[in-house]
Amino acid sequence: MKLFKTGTLALAGIFSFGLAGQQSAVSAAEKTEKETKPNFIVIFADDLGYGDLGIFGNPVIKTPNLDKMAVEGQKWTSFYVAAPVCTPSRAGLLTGRLPIRSGMCSDKRRVLFPDSNGGLPQSEITIAKALKENGYKTAAVGKWHLGHKSPHLPTDHGFDSYFGIPYSNDMDKVEKTDHFTLAENERYQAYNVPLLRDKEVIERPADQRTITKRYTEEAVARIKSMKQEPFFIYLAHSLPHIPLFRSEEFKDVSVSGIYGDVIEEIDWSVGQILKTLKEEGLDENTLVIFTSDNGPWHTFKTHGGTAGLLRGAKGGTFEGGMREPTVFRWPGTLKPGVVMDMATTMDLLPTFCKLSGTQLPDDRTYDGYDISPLILGNGKSKRDVVYYYRGEQVYAVRKGAYKAHFITQNEYGSQTAHPITDPPLEITNAPTVHETPLLYNLNIDPAEKYNIAEQHPEIIAEIKNVLQEHLAGIEPVENQLEK
Amino acid sequence: MKLFKTGTLALAGIFSFGLAGQQSAVSAAEKTEKETKPNFIVIFADDLGYGDLGIFGNPVIKTPNLDKMAVEGQKWTSFYVAAPVCTPSRAGLLTGRLPIRSGMCSDKRRVLFPDSNGGLPQSEITIAKALKENGYKTAAVGKWHLGHKSPHLPTDHGFDSYFGIPYSNDMDKVEKTDHFTLAENERYQAYNVPLLRDKEVIERPADQRTITKRYTEEAVARIKSMKQEPFFIYLAHSLPHIPLFRSEEFKDVSVSGIYGDVIEEIDWSVGQILKTLKEEGLDENTLVIFTSDNGPWHTFKTHGGTAGLLRGAKGGTFEGGMREPTVFRWPGTLKPGVVMDMATTMDLLPTFCKLSGTQLPDDRTYDGYDISPLILGNGKSKRDVVYYYRGEQVYAVRKGAYKAHFITQNEYGSQTAHPITDPPLEITNAPTVHETPLLYNLNIDPAEKYNIAEQHPEIIAEIKNVLQEHLAGIEPVENQLEK
Repeated sequence: MKLFKTGTLALAGIFSFGLAGQQSAVSAAEKTEKETKPNFIVIFADDLGYGDLGIFGNPVIKTPNLDKMAVEGQKWTSFYVAAPVCTPSRAGLLTGRLPIRSGMCSDKRRVLFPDSNGGLPQSEITIAKALKENGYKTAAVGKWHLGHKSPHLPTDHGFDSYFGIPYSNDMDKVEKTDHFTLAENERYQAYNVPLLRDKEVIERPADQRTITKRYTEEAVARIKSMKQEPFFIYLAHSLPHIPLFRSEEFKDVSVSGIYGDVIEEIDWSVGQILKTLKEEGLDENTLVIFTSDNGPWHTFKTHGGTAGLLRGAKGGTFEGGMREPTVFRWPGTLKPGVVMDMATTMDLLPTFCKLSGTQLPDDRTYDGYDISPLILGNGKSKRDVVYYYRGEQVYAVRKGAYKAHFITQNEYGSQTAHPITDPPLEITNAPTVHETPLLYNLNIDPAEKYNIAEQHPEIIAEIKNVLQEHLAGIEPVENQLEK
Repeated sequence: MKLFKTGTLALAGIFSFGLAGQQSAVSAAEKTEKETKPNFIVIFADDLGYGDLGIFGNPVIKTPNLDKMAVEGQKWTSFYVAAPVCTPSRAGLLTGRLPIRSGMCSDKRRVLFPDSNGGLPQSEITIAKALKENGYKTAAVGKWHLGHKSPHLPTDHGFDSYFGIPYSNDMDKVEKTDHFTLAENERYQAYNVPLLRDKEVIERPADQRTITKRYTEEAVARIKSMKQEPFFIYLAHSLPHIPLFRSEEFKDVSVSGIYGDVIEEIDWSVGQILKTLKEEGLDENTLVIFTSDNGPWHTFKTHGGTAGLLRGAKGGTFEGGMREPTVFRWPGTLKPGVVMDMATTMDLLPTFCKLSGTQLPDDRTYDGYDISPLILGNGKSKRDVVYYYRGEQVYAVRKGAYKAHFITQNEYGSQTAHPITDPPLEITNAPTVHETPLLYNLNIDPAEKYNIAEQHPEIIAEIKNVLQEHLAGIEPVENQLEK
């Protein structure tokens, strides 16, 4: 498999911070056989908002490692997840397919719970499973939330190892125990969540005070233990999902309270990963991607993050629910700059396969597109459409700059967060189906304030067609969240 | 006069993007006599929002020059202006004093108009006047708006030269001529604003299509003509204040419509200034500051900008009205990084005086503080309080992290922009005086969503005292805006 050649022309949609010249360009020809299979690390935060990082405009939280990563790498400003909530979002990332295709979303249960029996079906092909077939070592660290019973665990799905809490850190709540009446040091005991090593419970309740630190140590150890082969690491932090915890060293380091502390520890963690890659000489052969599973959880006010200028939050299909602060880094190969093109977590599977020469079976529909031309700076991706699912329903569709909302509904906690729009629009807690969809131009109006449906019936008609065609291609499967 | 020594320790409140090591450190001792008087350039945008630059989180507007300037220099995330509207904001910047002290704000008229006879009194000391006394050459380029009749013009106030439109670009509206019914090429004719060279009208109506470009050319020419002496340039763009204009070369360069084009041309302009400094060998002896006069003008919807995650806009005293996207650059001397400390445009006068060894008379109250320790990275500023004036009234006071709103009132166009807060709060078009002020912790809650007044009566009491003391020190002067 040959790597794409790095283009020399600046392309529309990518511009540089002007520091590109400081990075050494490595041509495809100079790469060794081993190097033609790059390592991949995906760092996935939980409930991090679009506006929570310094480089994405946060005025009070310090994220020097992610800021630097963005400056040396690529800052993606229009990068989406597959769903505005945890389980389906993760299913989308790992399979390159919309969660509706694997039964991993539901109108009745948002996510998997400790009493769930379902999980990601064995018939699905995860990034780990695909790359493993091509000689990769693989490790999952952190939150899983795709089924905590076999055969749904990470090591059932192509990962050589797993270390983490298998679902959300606020689950298994201990009866009559209130987080905030406990001494800070004991609060983690209010959530009886297990910590797994592969399939074994090694600690319960997991001591969440050190969870970010221990995930980081595990990821660093896996880099070192797997480095002789190409590797894929999926590091899915349990935080900043509530309840918030940070290690002793990060207590009160942020001016912005415990939420700031938590993000600053995750930023430190990113720094540790990048430092390890450099020390191990893997820096220039590893694509590192940082993003989050969905928008901030507004229900929890100052214990939740901010979507910045975007409207909406976790659980909803306005931009704040599904557009994530995303940074790529791959010194010497990636074209540094800001990428405004649309992309999604579902694009990672086909992209990693393309970059590593991995074949995917053509027996199913993939919803991802190869975005390696955008990474390498030598072309475009084929993505022109994003679907915004809530549960099993498509609430909105973006095509090019235009986004049509067919259904609107309050996201979790949104009564405290919604901007008033022009004309005023009431967003309700129950779904509202719009006879004429709301229409926004996200390039001109990224905050979704100015409905232009009346001016553009032709665009609405076009998007309606796109949606109909999409829905016709969705085949019913067994629902995993309701099992 | 000796320059401050550059500190070697990282200080709280400043952290680096990690690129500091790439800049050569020049010690005070190595500087020549000429170099101990640095050049100062202030680039002042008009109505630019906190969220309008890429480095401040904008997802659709490309500002590679400002992004790079912030990475090489300092990004200030808590930098304020003296008022949320044009004329008083500019008076504050140039005099280092709250506009109430010079009679440059009014409850009856927001700003100066073409029929105004008043302007900045001769008794005031502008940055230009102060530096001129100390051997500086000085030039004003762009919008003035501190009086368009002598003795209120720039060359009456310490500037050696002036080139610009002396007030807002939407004034002198031609009767019965509508901007949008004219062909795009002719729209500038709807505003019969004069273009001045010193005190002479050289063009009327000013051809605003090329105004950003011509301001830039003028500033570049002034750098070249004044470079033998230390110099101060005040480059105050007329845009992105409506009506929006951009030159032929910037038509449709942005994905984000005409507003994006206008910002991208201003970003280009910044690049031209920095390029010129480098070419002329002035790069390391020039402090360049970029900021804006007030928040975005929401009344004009997609022709106005965004305050990002901040609440409010132009005209109002929530953060979006007065906190500005601010970038400093001074290679080799400034300590690169993100500065979260509070500062204001009024701090520039005492800071420039400190850095250049310029004496200021002590016959008056200055509202600015020397922020050179923050620039050089060797200490703090004394600023702990910011006053939010609307007209002649103090609506809000920030002390440390806490901000108390004594009066609230809708900003211009805010009915389309206000986030709903928790608990819900109606902001009215007329002023509402709050018996118990609203209280926000801006470090934890920069979007001013969660009123914590009930939990912190002691902080409200403290801020009330600060305000009373402040008001006791304000002496009545002749109002200039009502003349």
